[in-house]
Amino acid sequence: MQYLFIIEILGTIAFTISGALAAIEKKLDLFGVLTLGFVTAIGGGTIRDVLIGNTPVSWMRDLTTPLVILGAGLFTMVFGRYLQKLRTTLFLFDTLGLALFTVTGMKKGLDLELNHGICVALGTITGCFGGVLRDTLTGQIPALFHTREIYATACILGGSIYFGSLHFLPAQAAETIAIVVICTTRLLAVRYDWKLPMAKPL
Amino acid sequence: MQYLFIIEILGTIAFTISGALAAIEKKLDLFGVLTLGFVTAIGGGTIRDVLIGNTPVSWMRDLTTPLVILGAGLFTMVFGRYLQKLRTTLFLFDTLGLALFTVTGMKKGLDLELNHGICVALGTITGCFGGVLRDTLTGQIPALFHTREIYATACILGGSIYFGSLHFLPAQAAETIAIVVICTTRLLAVRYDWKLPMAKPL
Amino acid sequence: MQYLFIIEILGTIAFTISGALAAIEKKLDLFGVLTLGFVTAIGGGTIRDVLIGNTPVSWMRDLTTPLVILGAGLFTMVFGRYLQKLRTTLFLFDTLGLALFTVTGMKKGLDLELNHGICVALGTITGCFGGVLRDTLTGQIPALFHTREIYATACILGGSIYFGSLHFLPAQAAETIAIVVICTTRLLAVRYDWKLPMAKPL
Repeated sequence: MQYLFIIEILGTIAFTISGALAAIEKKLDLFGVLTLGFVTAIGGGTIRDVLIGNTPVSWMRDLTTPLVILGAGLFTMVFGRYLQKLRTTLFLFDTLGLALFTVTGMKKGLDLELNHGICVALGTITGCFGGVLRDTLTGQIPALFHTREIYATACILGGSIYFGSLHFLPAQAAETIAIVVICTTRLLAVRYDWKLPMAKPL
Repeated sequence: MQYLFIIEILGTIAFTISGALAAIEKKLDLFGVLTLGFVTAIGGGTIRDVLIGNTPVSWMRDLTTPLVILGAGLFTMVFGRYLQKLRTTLFLFDTLGLALFTVTGMKKGLDLELNHGICVALGTITGCFGGVLRDTLTGQIPALFHTREIYATACILGGSIYFGSLHFLPAQAAETIAIVVICTTRLLAVRYDWKLPMAKPL
Repeated sequence: MQYLFIIEILGTIAFTISGALAAIEKKLDLFGVLTLGFVTAIGGGTIRDVLIGNTPVSWMRDLTTPLVILGAGLFTMVFGRYLQKLRTTLFLFDTLGLALFTVTGMKKGLDLELNHGICVALGTITGCFGGVLRDTLTGQIPALFHTREIYATACILGGSIYFGSLHFLPAQAAETIAIVVICTTRLLAVRYDWKLPMAKPL
């Protein structure tokens, strides 16, 4: 559907900018900035494709994504300092991308008739693990693991509701519900400062 | 065989706890602790599966392992400080897991008729590389590469003896011998403080 | 062709030494030094193979490369301090290896009829990403991303000229041209201190 395609582009742009800005902050060069943007945007989907054997991985078979990333990466290289001010817009795009990529990942798992719990894990990997690669490659412990944000948790919640909905709704309606749940959860979590628990120190 | 299954569960639990404790030490949140436990327990086997094209990777096709990891991870989240005191028990489980995972990895290589030396490498990757991912994701140089412990070395030794034994013993006997050799080597190495050499500084 | 095989061996040796020396510098033990040498030499080709589904990955199916790496790694372990003085020779071998691995990677992409731009990316990954793994595993931000060197850029340039040449030259001539372009670009860049641009700080 058309609106899913638009969300995918917006999400890809937001993920690329997040990687490219992290790279600029670490004083990487042109190649580093573009590569970090690329890895952040396609990293989650690539890990998913490799884990399920969907090769050559997706971005090698459709040039739309690589070209969008190249454009967004070059744009960030030049206008990075202005992009930083669009924090709220980028946050919204990022959230949309997170939700859509999660759904895309779950559907790939369903195609292979994997267990629904595994599909939710695949969706979460698709949405979140580009950022894990971005942080690892810039020498940081992945934010996903320690900021206590409701990020992967939103994917897991939305994914569970997706499979619940599939029992009595057509696939497209269930997808829309999952996207809405993931976005809403993430927005509410930021708004009300919901946090994940930590263990007591050892 | 039943006893191999029990060893696999004990090993999975020990690997998960090792990842989850490392995560708690680094002040990761709930999602980080569970993910680190997961990655440590299934990372080696996943890298092996990806390298040989055995996809979807193993943990996606049998829920036993993911569920054991989830349980062990949550348990560590709550009772981590008590688990730390079971150092010796965990060390023994970890050693059993190391040995069994090595054998499992070698058998996957044999199924593909890979060279025996490559099979030993695959076994060693299966046993040891979950810990490499754990350390990399928590921002540390992998312990496997610098502690001078006889860890991967025990796998290589046990693996070599496994293929030697296969010439004149049935497969199950050779597997048992490999497991015994790996465990014994590791235990003796810790007991007598055997260390790997280092190069002279440059 | 015979001369490509010789280049491949020289390149593998240079990459292994680069990984092993980085490991010795970080005070890794014998297993760490050999593994780092191995990962640096076969890392790029392995990532490529995994991304395109060429499994079991190449080094598992031909023992030449693993044996060359083992030899070069052990040699570096013992004679590392002398090897450091051969800086220029190693630089030349490394450049030859970079060029050849890039061409090898592009040809694998061509075999799968992937888009030419994707093939150039595959070639660049093959040539450069062993070093990315080496740096990540020794706890450093990959040099490829921040030294501003003309390294990956030389691969991209040579790769583009390769596909341009294929329109009116036989494959072997185009390969030779690509290798010459990559080596020449890298040598000139070092000689005249050409640098990649960086973004303005945020």
